[in-house]
Amino acid sequence: MRMAGRAIELGAAGVLALALATAQAQQNPAAEAARAWRTAHERAILAEFMGLLAIPNLARDGPNIRRNAAAVEGLLERRGVKTRVLEVPGAPPVVFGAIDTPGAARTLVFYAHYDGQPLDPKEWTTPPWQPAVREGRIYARSASDDKAPIMAIGAALDGLRAAGIAPRSNIRFVFEGEEEAGSPHLASILEKYKDLLGGDVWLICDGPVHQSRRQQIVFGARGITTLDITLYGPRHELHSGHYGNWAPNPAMMLARLLASMKDGEGRVTIAHFYDGIEPLSATERQAIAEAPDVDGGLMRELWLGATEGGGQKLVELLNLPSLNVRGMSSARTGAQASNVVPGTATASIDIRLVKGIDHDAEAARVIEHIRKQGYFVVATEPDAATRMAHARVAKVVVEAGGYDAARTSMDLPISQVVLRTAESARGPVVKLPTMGGSVPLYMIEKILGAPTITVPIANHDNNQHSFDENLRIENLWDGIELLAALLAM
Amino acid sequence: MRMAGRAIELGAAGVLALALATAQAQQNPAAEAARAWRTAHERAILAEFMGLLAIPNLARDGPNIRRNAAAVEGLLERRGVKTRVLEVPGAPPVVFGAIDTPGAARTLVFYAHYDGQPLDPKEWTTPPWQPAVREGRIYARSASDDKAPIMAIGAALDGLRAAGIAPRSNIRFVFEGEEEAGSPHLASILEKYKDLLGGDVWLICDGPVHQSRRQQIVFGARGITTLDITLYGPRHELHSGHYGNWAPNPAMMLARLLASMKDGEGRVTIAHFYDGIEPLSATERQAIAEAPDVDGGLMRELWLGATEGGGQKLVELLNLPSLNVRGMSSARTGAQASNVVPGTATASIDIRLVKGIDHDAEAARVIEHIRKQGYFVVATEPDAATRMAHARVAKVVVEAGGYDAARTSMDLPISQVVLRTAESARGPVVKLPTMGGSVPLYMIEKILGAPTITVPIANHDNNQHSFDENLRIENLWDGIELLAALLAM
Repeated sequence: MRMAGRAIELGAAGVLALALATAQAQQNPAAEAARAWRTAHERAILAEFMGLLAIPNLARDGPNIRRNAAAVEGLLERRGVKTRVLEVPGAPPVVFGAIDTPGAARTLVFYAHYDGQPLDPKEWTTPPWQPAVREGRIYARSASDDKAPIMAIGAALDGLRAAGIAPRSNIRFVFEGEEEAGSPHLASILEKYKDLLGGDVWLICDGPVHQSRRQQIVFGARGITTLDITLYGPRHELHSGHYGNWAPNPAMMLARLLASMKDGEGRVTIAHFYDGIEPLSATERQAIAEAPDVDGGLMRELWLGATEGGGQKLVELLNLPSLNVRGMSSARTGAQASNVVPGTATASIDIRLVKGIDHDAEAARVIEHIRKQGYFVVATEPDAATRMAHARVAKVVVEAGGYDAARTSMDLPISQVVLRTAESARGPVVKLPTMGGSVPLYMIEKILGAPTITVPIANHDNNQHSFDENLRIENLWDGIELLAALLAM
Repeated sequence: MRMAGRAIELGAAGVLALALATAQAQQNPAAEAARAWRTAHERAILAEFMGLLAIPNLARDGPNIRRNAAAVEGLLERRGVKTRVLEVPGAPPVVFGAIDTPGAARTLVFYAHYDGQPLDPKEWTTPPWQPAVREGRIYARSASDDKAPIMAIGAALDGLRAAGIAPRSNIRFVFEGEEEAGSPHLASILEKYKDLLGGDVWLICDGPVHQSRRQQIVFGARGITTLDITLYGPRHELHSGHYGNWAPNPAMMLARLLASMKDGEGRVTIAHFYDGIEPLSATERQAIAEAPDVDGGLMRELWLGATEGGGQKLVELLNLPSLNVRGMSSARTGAQASNVVPGTATASIDIRLVKGIDHDAEAARVIEHIRKQGYFVVATEPDAATRMAHARVAKVVVEAGGYDAARTSMDLPISQVVLRTAESARGPVVKLPTMGGSVPLYMIEKILGAPTITVPIANHDNNQHSFDENLRIENLWDGIELLAALLAM
């Protein structure tokens, strides 16, 4: 258990901000009602949450993903929400819910996703779908990303109902089942159910709060495209003594190719990689400047002796596209290593995009870079003739389901309403033009014309996307209050 | 099954050489006797061999390695060889055998090893310890490396006895059980049993014949040292969106570090890496020049569009030290990949050494190179304080059991006798100053003062050290003849 019980070192200013936030939570009646309910029902809330977390939720695991959808639907129905399952062929169902408010002036759409990232169970301290509580955290796949807001919404609805507080807006829930697979069918679902899914704002319940543990409201998300690069050495592994400095080594070739993509400070050296970035507005630049400086504390928390980016802060760097080697493999290491020239070497790369950069164009720039390093690039397994005809062959597979970044202006009236509501419930919030992670906001804006604003509740140190994913229970409690305030907005 | 049935394209000259070799095998009575025996007993020989291959033989698997030793001892005893098991604490036993010949003018020591390389059973077409015959080959771990010569010696002894041919020399057998683990105890065994193990020559029965399928006699072997390099990013995997161009990525760091070790032609750029190489003699240079040129055929066989070494031939390059990435890993690729900044990245490297270069000194040069790239180098897992105190930390573990290269002069009288005997049994042989692979010849020469000459029998395309290791049955038959001739020498 690597992270449990570790809190970021905040310094005096951070502690003050948290104290302030707690005091100010009393100013919002919906948040107060939610807190009263939660305090009296903590065990029941956790029990219901752990039941939800116990259902394996990989998007590609059809039967289990449908069990999740049914559980999420049940969670809403138990709170009197009218539900409907939205389907397109080949996709996990979207669970839709609606609370209609007669005379409502606006419609708020709450988005979350119930599927989780792929995983290797062997890496987990406790099994990923057997939720376990240790030192104030719940450990399970999707404990934070992204079943936490679904549970928080359920408890918030209970709290509001118990206090007799009815929503003033029309409320819609859209809970997706393949976000971690890149939301390949979201566009067609949005198109098909356009009339059902529109609203004045989509509130994206995903991602972590600020590293200072302050509430954060985020006005955009980076886009993403993912590609796998495989390079080829000999047809099969060879004895490294007999062929060791004659047969080309694909692991070394991959090292050279990857090294050509970034400089020593982490800046991407692929031609045109940073072209077209939409500049930040004055409000956005100011919000970034006002964001708490957490870099030093994060470095200590993460045991880092250095960071990339030539001295820029994390909060600034998120406004640039990134190129990340998310995995690399060739033959074997450790006890399984043997003295071979490997037959192939593979790197999996994810590229995060910011507003103004098209995801297909960015992937094409990477492929063009690989060509410039002397590789003959193919999209499928190269045959013997292809491999013999070229000194260097690279298979590059761009994963389907990439999408562009999105960013909503902080100056819109709805942006101001959301900010005021959140601050009344949770005290001064950190405002950011974009989160570092990716959610398909771009499609929502494009198809429905609705702006998106992200209202995260998970702790930042949640091991999201990795093993031992967890949610601080305190973050669940805080999230219930935030979501109650937004539901009553 | 990747290699079965594929033979190297020889061209007319190669085919002629093979035909000649076959014709000349008739000139050696011992080889003729072995052939006659083998022809009449093929099924029995294969059955006995498959029994030996069915015993799992990883050096670290104590109980099974002793079952192998017992089986090897039994194989010798059934042929009337006096055996003895040589032990030092913590090591698999060495099976020793002796045939004393009254009045013998010399003592010949036949070395082989009965342990095999580590493996991943999932990669094998058929299970590694369930020997299977397909298309003229036996598939099993150690079918070629290195149980084949042990079986060939057994059958050769049968053939000689049936024909009434007695050895003219004293014969010793030394069958080791941890060669693939780097022979960590061989030195102490040689020291302890010095009186038993000396001889006029050690004949090393290991490695493959020439890629043209001609018999080859090799007068040396490269040394080896192996090291694992682990680089560190964040304390644990991080979400690649939220931290993707701020937290240093150890996979990318590893790519840059490895890329700094070689140039585009595969020449090692580590300072002093090639210093101290003992030059080749005129006889050795001539032998290399006379070796058949197989590079073109090998490239087709291995689907290669290019080779390393700036145009030098394989047979030349083996006389240089090599640096080979034998495995590389960081987080996950393929279906298990997820969007993380990996926590660590590891490369396993093997370095092949030639005569004149000390294995410890060469490892130290690599470590010094890593330091020059800005890394703080540690030998054990670095703690939080160490990781935070340095921008870049590398753990470098040099595996125990490395050793230097060895090379016996082709001009020694015993070298000439071995060459003449081999040619009388197998036709014109390919003579090489060194094999590309590593066997601990260096220790034998140093401790016992005996020169070593390598007399391989396996096919070159045997997937040695990898999955689907195999032996061409024809190579076993040829090997029986060669070894009969050498035993009667």
